[in-house]
Amino acid sequence: MIGRRKNLDSNVPVPHDIPMVVLGTGLLWFGWFGFNAGSALAANGLAVNALIVTHIAAASAGLSWSIIEWIHNDKPTMFGMAGGAVAGLVAITPAAGFVSATSAIIIGLLVSVVCFISVAIIKPKLGYDDSLDAFGVHGVGGIFGALATGLFASKAINSQGADGLFFGNSHLLYVQCIAVLATVVYSLIVTFIIYKIIDLTIGMRVNEKEELIGLDLAEHGERAYTILE
Amino acid sequence: MIGRRKNLDSNVPVPHDIPMVVLGTGLLWFGWFGFNAGSALAANGLAVNALIVTHIAAASAGLSWSIIEWIHNDKPTMFGMAGGAVAGLVAITPAAGFVSATSAIIIGLLVSVVCFISVAIIKPKLGYDDSLDAFGVHGVGGIFGALATGLFASKAINSQGADGLFFGNSHLLYVQCIAVLATVVYSLIVTFIIYKIIDLTIGMRVNEKEELIGLDLAEHGERAYTILE
Amino acid sequence: MIGRRKNLDSNVPVPHDIPMVVLGTGLLWFGWFGFNAGSALAANGLAVNALIVTHIAAASAGLSWSIIEWIHNDKPTMFGMAGGAVAGLVAITPAAGFVSATSAIIIGLLVSVVCFISVAIIKPKLGYDDSLDAFGVHGVGGIFGALATGLFASKAINSQGADGLFFGNSHLLYVQCIAVLATVVYSLIVTFIIYKIIDLTIGMRVNEKEELIGLDLAEHGERAYTILE
Repeated sequence: MIGRRKNLDSNVPVPHDIPMVVLGTGLLWFGWFGFNAGSALAANGLAVNALIVTHIAAASAGLSWSIIEWIHNDKPTMFGMAGGAVAGLVAITPAAGFVSATSAIIIGLLVSVVCFISVAIIKPKLGYDDSLDAFGVHGVGGIFGALATGLFASKAINSQGADGLFFGNSHLLYVQCIAVLATVVYSLIVTFIIYKIIDLTIGMRVNEKEELIGLDLAEHGERAYTILE
Repeated sequence: MIGRRKNLDSNVPVPHDIPMVVLGTGLLWFGWFGFNAGSALAANGLAVNALIVTHIAAASAGLSWSIIEWIHNDKPTMFGMAGGAVAGLVAITPAAGFVSATSAIIIGLLVSVVCFISVAIIKPKLGYDDSLDAFGVHGVGGIFGALATGLFASKAINSQGADGLFFGNSHLLYVQCIAVLATVVYSLIVTFIIYKIIDLTIGMRVNEKEELIGLDLAEHGERAYTILE
Repeated sequence: MIGRRKNLDSNVPVPHDIPMVVLGTGLLWFGWFGFNAGSALAANGLAVNALIVTHIAAASAGLSWSIIEWIHNDKPTMFGMAGGAVAGLVAITPAAGFVSATSAIIIGLLVSVVCFISVAIIKPKLGYDDSLDAFGVHGVGGIFGALATGLFASKAINSQGADGLFFGNSHLLYVQCIAVLATVVYSLIVTFIIYKIIDLTIGMRVNEKEELIGLDLAEHGERAYTILE
């Protein structure tokens, strides 16, 4: 609805500071422990399980993304490893309170396959613009994680939860599918309404000149880096 | 007493790496949770209250500083948001064990007003040099926070504390005023004594050549960044 | 066995980003609290002792390294302080559950002396290449810490441990010497075997062209920093 960035084709952006990418991924990874383990609202065994599966899924997904890049692009990159780790964190989040460490390895290894296909193959074909791969990593990874919960959840981990398909209960996968569908429909409708309200009031897109100058200068009057001669 | 930096007027320093400013603010913000909540010396409800009001005050003050910049300078900056968040952390610190989340919002919103006036209006008028705005943000923000504790403290939050002016006890504000005055007088006298001792022994200021070269090279023989051709 | 880097003599590498060195040291320091205090496997007094001696040893070693540089090179550097802090963290690790805060100060102050001699005096004489000073800081510092545990351990800190030489029990120092020797011999043999296996299969060293280009580009196809003109 908004359209692509103006000069995207002639000027493909590359990550300009890999150490900061790695650092940001590390801080996000660490913070995610609080996010998933803290959801137990207690310092108990379930919180420990959530923390461990979060760690394992992120590590597995980072490894898996690197291997896919190695096969597909001939070289594994640090940037890909970081993106894979984030995909793993996203995918394990709905499952963290309900799956075992072994399931977390499988979820981590698989989410990178799904997200890599989404980001590196489907995205260029569809030609949409997503500078942070919010849809390809967070959207697709989150949907995958919600469905994986329907497969890998186990009452042996959380007696207050439910068993998934691989533990003999196909009903949970059905429930997770409905939940994913409901979330997608809800998000589409509400985002559309918010988009329309913003577009009619503040406006959704900066003008072309501001876009070419860059929002740091145009909107905030500051540069990320200033080098004094 | 030391005087301003030599080449300050012709060479106004600007932040050279905004991502590092934001990162440092984030790490400080996170560490401040330990500082304020840890002061409860126990993992209890008071520690949780201190952590939450710390978070809320920092967020409110960052927001408030951005809005003031927006009105005053036409553009909100990331740098201003970071400075505002630090002002909020400073202001909530004396109050963290004694005020509610609602009071924390008000303290956060107001401290940025006070510190912005101090840094952006009073500082240029007085013409003093404070490269880190230690006085404008930490000094003024800390005094504001100490007085705000006298206004917003509530026995409903901490039964071992006292009520502030807004909860019917004007005595606490009087006590906080005396405490602030005593702290300012003590700091002035003791800093003056320390200053004199250092000035007579090591010397307080580097010579002009070292100042122009910069202390990294003059005193430590190292550069922050080395770019190999 | 692998040999030195090719262009090391004509092109002495210097740290290119001191702020990132300091940041990395800080994150490592913080993470080390989890490493040493977490080893108590409980939130008890022993974990608190481990956390405190870890903090104190790192701070003492950073200070001590700076002073040694000041005396030896005329200028203390941030880079040296960071390296000293890491040496302190390494040295306190075997001792963390068994020594007092006073012992931690002594261990921290001394480990920098030992590691500085290893890195700044012995290393250039032997002419070996160790880009991260893994041997000089982690190897030597770890051996020093293991022996220091044999000197400073005290049953007053951990009743399940043993007293060291300075607390009247020379046997522990003897045990620690045997343990260090066994670790060194084990590491030499097993590393040699792993080295041979990798050398015969994947190969241990990149070819000369790849080494001169740098592994970021040669192996991963990415640059750490990309500056758009």
